[in-house]
Amino acid sequence: MTVCNEQINLEKLKKAEQIILELQAELKNYIAAGSGPFLAAIYDENDHLIAKTANSVVSENCSHNHAEMNAIKAAEKVLNTYDLSAHNLKLYVTAEPCIMCLGGIMWSGIKEVYYGVSSKRVEEITGFDEGFKPDWLNEFARRGIKVYGEIATEAGEKVLHEYVAAGRKVYKPER
Amino acid sequence: MTVCNEQINLEKLKKAEQIILELQAELKNYIAAGSGPFLAAIYDENDHLIAKTANSVVSENCSHNHAEMNAIKAAEKVLNTYDLSAHNLKLYVTAEPCIMCLGGIMWSGIKEVYYGVSSKRVEEITGFDEGFKPDWLNEFARRGIKVYGEIATEAGEKVLHEYVAAGRKVYKPER
Repeated sequence: MTVCNEQINLEKLKKAEQIILELQAELKNYIAAGSGPFLAAIYDENDHLIAKTANSVVSENCSHNHAEMNAIKAAEKVLNTYDLSAHNLKLYVTAEPCIMCLGGIMWSGIKEVYYGVSSKRVEEITGFDEGFKPDWLNEFARRGIKVYGEIATEAGEKVLHEYVAAGRKVYKPER
Repeated sequence: MTVCNEQINLEKLKKAEQIILELQAELKNYIAAGSGPFLAAIYDENDHLIAKTANSVVSENCSHNHAEMNAIKAAEKVLNTYDLSAHNLKLYVTAEPCIMCLGGIMWSGIKEVYYGVSSKRVEEITGFDEGFKPDWLNEFARRGIKVYGEIATEAGEKVLHEYVAAGRKVYKPER
């Protein structure tokens, strides 16, 4: 069941379904090449692709390198600014952002967020720790950031199941 | 008034006061050189300095580059791992971490966090947006991450007042 924090716009949702299905399909290739099982893409208001990046925590040895963080960093580099808001950018990602990425999204000036699998289902399927979160959809609404979530979840859950079945790394701090 | 999420340990608190006072004093030089008004340092269990970094959002044009994020990234590079937990590291920072940095700290495996000025006071003094946060001290306790906060706040607030008085940039997404 799709969740969203504005009056639902079916055109936006349809476009997001298409993009997230494409990301889920591509994600399999990223995983085969050593990435973590999450992929993010940032598009501008004219639907031009600005950045597309997978999770690279293990491959680049940095715990910050979630797909969303990598995509924002890449977009800020391409557009040469720490404030993306003037570009009216949309972030599409294969799973719900964690607490770190929620902050990263807020501070970047991204205007719209579309995600696939919920954190709850990611945790259930993979064993990844997605952390604690406040009621972020309402907090984002208050800040004018639109969110649509749980989009094309069947395809997304299938990729995560395959990641686990292939014995790929479910990294987390050992504590 | 100091806050903490374990039975208070006065030896840890005394050491943290000394380190945070040093950071607040050094921070003035970082600000003069173009950094944002926040400085973080990571020490190992033998009190060896592993990383010390200021906020570089404006100077490096990346909204992720909070002092804590920069310090964790630097520590992971120095120690060549995305999981710092085996090193029993302590993060000291001149102000309370934002929601992005809370996530960044959790995923890094940092074991102890000591901070100066609260987010509330940072917002009141500077106008920076520190975002929304859940009850993170209890969440961190549950994950075994010790937190001591609001340490040496008088010195910290003075640095922030000076930052504002000097007309330095209080950056945030324009929306």
